[in-house]
Amino acid sequence: MSASQIGLMGLGTMGSALALNIAEKGYDIAVWNRTTAKTKDFVVEAGDLASRITPCESLEAFVNAIERPRTIILMVPAGAPVDQQIADLEPYLAPDDLIIDAGNANFNDTTRRMRDVKFPFLGVGVSGGEEGARHGPSIMVGGAKENWERVAPILKAIAAKHEGEPCADWMGEAGAGHFVKTVHNGIEYADMQLIAEVYGIMRDGLGLGASEIGDVFDRWNEGVLQSYLIEISGKVAHTEDAASGGPLLDIIEDAAGQKGTGRWTAIEAQHLASIVPVIEAAVAARNMSARRGQRRDLQDVFGAAPQGVDSASIPLDKLEAALICGKILCYSQGFDMIATAFAQNGWDDNLPGIAKVWREGCIIRSGMLDDMATALAEQPGRSLMASPLFADRLKATEGALRHVVVTAMAKGLPIPALSSALAYFDTMRTARGTANMIQGQRDFFGLHGFKRLDDGSENQHGPWASN
Amino acid sequence: MSASQIGLMGLGTMGSALALNIAEKGYDIAVWNRTTAKTKDFVVEAGDLASRITPCESLEAFVNAIERPRTIILMVPAGAPVDQQIADLEPYLAPDDLIIDAGNANFNDTTRRMRDVKFPFLGVGVSGGEEGARHGPSIMVGGAKENWERVAPILKAIAAKHEGEPCADWMGEAGAGHFVKTVHNGIEYADMQLIAEVYGIMRDGLGLGASEIGDVFDRWNEGVLQSYLIEISGKVAHTEDAASGGPLLDIIEDAAGQKGTGRWTAIEAQHLASIVPVIEAAVAARNMSARRGQRRDLQDVFGAAPQGVDSASIPLDKLEAALICGKILCYSQGFDMIATAFAQNGWDDNLPGIAKVWREGCIIRSGMLDDMATALAEQPGRSLMASPLFADRLKATEGALRHVVVTAMAKGLPIPALSSALAYFDTMRTARGTANMIQGQRDFFGLHGFKRLDDGSENQHGPWASN
Repeated sequence: MSASQIGLMGLGTMGSALALNIAEKGYDIAVWNRTTAKTKDFVVEAGDLASRITPCESLEAFVNAIERPRTIILMVPAGAPVDQQIADLEPYLAPDDLIIDAGNANFNDTTRRMRDVKFPFLGVGVSGGEEGARHGPSIMVGGAKENWERVAPILKAIAAKHEGEPCADWMGEAGAGHFVKTVHNGIEYADMQLIAEVYGIMRDGLGLGASEIGDVFDRWNEGVLQSYLIEISGKVAHTEDAASGGPLLDIIEDAAGQKGTGRWTAIEAQHLASIVPVIEAAVAARNMSARRGQRRDLQDVFGAAPQGVDSASIPLDKLEAALICGKILCYSQGFDMIATAFAQNGWDDNLPGIAKVWREGCIIRSGMLDDMATALAEQPGRSLMASPLFADRLKATEGALRHVVVTAMAKGLPIPALSSALAYFDTMRTARGTANMIQGQRDFFGLHGFKRLDDGSENQHGPWASN
Repeated sequence: MSASQIGLMGLGTMGSALALNIAEKGYDIAVWNRTTAKTKDFVVEAGDLASRITPCESLEAFVNAIERPRTIILMVPAGAPVDQQIADLEPYLAPDDLIIDAGNANFNDTTRRMRDVKFPFLGVGVSGGEEGARHGPSIMVGGAKENWERVAPILKAIAAKHEGEPCADWMGEAGAGHFVKTVHNGIEYADMQLIAEVYGIMRDGLGLGASEIGDVFDRWNEGVLQSYLIEISGKVAHTEDAASGGPLLDIIEDAAGQKGTGRWTAIEAQHLASIVPVIEAAVAARNMSARRGQRRDLQDVFGAAPQGVDSASIPLDKLEAALICGKILCYSQGFDMIATAFAQNGWDDNLPGIAKVWREGCIIRSGMLDDMATALAEQPGRSLMASPLFADRLKATEGALRHVVVTAMAKGLPIPALSSALAYFDTMRTARGTANMIQGQRDFFGLHGFKRLDDGSENQHGPWASN
């Protein structure tokens, strides 16, 4: 058997799917799994693709099956197993062999490994679940650019395509790939929460049924909001429940689970002093959803809010515009967070490339991301919301968001993410803020000092300092 | 010289103030500092109190100067210096000597030390700055209750008093004292931000001058809002600037600094899956305030919002009621976070005691905290917002908060904390939320499963799962 062009270790759900994707694109691949039985099963299930797959029972056989300089993808559980796997491989490798961690690593671990691992190393975020891994994921690569260039052809071949352009690219140095994947998941939380709030306005405010709401999402999916999440929101809303004979949505409990990736985005944002209130609101909303008992208790105490609104007061086109506005603000926050992280870490980066790899293959894929890639490329170093295209869109939709937020909050409809998007917009577009009061208080009680606006002098104190 | 009743190590600003406070209350105290010169200066500056102070130049002399079983307060910088100081002390101590870390430790470090230190150990949060430490701080004690009881008399003697009752108490086991101090600081951020937003509504919405605003705060300080922060807001607003001849507030830059303690509260809340959106909004608002250049840039792009409101549309009594409502919701979130942390750590706790020690001595001291102590004692395990007293206050003020939020947001006045308080209230008082849409989406793209409302069956899937 001829030497394989690449090796993959770890044949779990994601690893198997990725290996089949690689083989299907015409690459010979060596595979290894901790338990050999799984390796054997995998080759059987590979069917026609088995001819391109070399199953290996030992690490030595696996390494020897790959042509040099080697490329080896790790798809093992995040954390200690990755370090262990690298340590086990080490004795068999040559100095120019490339290791790719394509699991769900914490980006801080990836940055550490980039420094400590004795071989060329890439940390790669893969988004799109099993289906994506098998047929075309979004691939976010972090590490030295020359290492990305070594594997770019194969990663581009297996990635999702946007109008023929592969959704795989180099995001930046060190942990940049896994960091971008983390923020992707935070944005995913926020996007889903914004949709849930708009759904709530239609259901509880306008009194629409699930199937009517599904029609609205279907229609929106033809416009600026076109995206996988809007598409599946329509499909979910249209789904009938066989058991009850009614809409499935109406029998699903309103308590959202989470695997914690949104939470990690919020924590990293705090470490970076980055501003992502819509993502924070989305994480908080999931936590609030899980407290069903407490919410029932509080509804008993305070009564239900009078949520119904005159349907003329929130026309559906205004609701669509409000969602567009909230979405732009939320994505702008996410891209700002990435830019901040890259700057603080001193990583070279590829900001427009991020929007490009998200256009297909991942959960937040959407038409709008194509425009975002263009806007970010045109205005390096500037917020998405200030780019000509998105500033125009915000100007065109800001009034709708304001109208929807004000109308919904007047009636007690819960819209934590939409309202935080508007509060963010209003705060950031106001040159003269109110933190002078906070600085005055801080100087009064702790002599923390303030800066004078008139002469720019720093570390000034009020007269209380001389007491 | 007779043996001292207590020892204190570390004569920085806070340590010196605390040592003088202890001596003034009639206790003999041994002191030690890493640099001996500082110890000598301290005794000179102590004046009449010097007779109660035993300055020590060596660790051995220091330990020998204290009566057994010893009580030793550490006031050294947080982190590694605390561990080092404990290690240095160890050879000189007897097994029943008590070490008190009264510095600004991270509560996780305190919990670790509670386990690892070979001596009785307490982690104590001290709030109130230099002034408080010298004349009466708020003291939050964490650790074994019997160790608290050993030092309760002296800590109560030096603490601030509320109608004669000392603001020093046992908060709970392990890191509970330092944890409560962390949340105190998060609430402090939120309280200050709510005041800054109300200030902004008066300044930019109602067109009031700084001194008129000062009058309003002075008046509010006579009512339900009576608190140190409202009091100093009034004083700051009334302060004239000698250089400009105008109000000082108007020449203070609107960019708030932070030492990061609000941020740490937000991070801990994420780890706990606790819900503190008003604190998160306050931290985000400080970060936004610091981006003055970006805000100016965005105001150029989007134009200033038309912020002025008809003064009849936001009467000052409604604004006061809105601030009361926002404050209650924010404190309720903070107490919930503490309860969650205590429950998750399996710590015995003293929730009403927390409100009691915050009544005086610390930055957030206020009349309302006295009522909160009563409410928390009456309803163990229940949210503050659901207690009869505060539920009534929320019912009486909810409409005002809603009116102020809706009116201000309609005009583009930035109110991220007030609006997040209202969104929190509306979400938590709504029994049937909208997270069923999120669960539907998650099941569609990742087969995460949902619970059925009708028969309560868990881990159900939509028809897409069978494809």
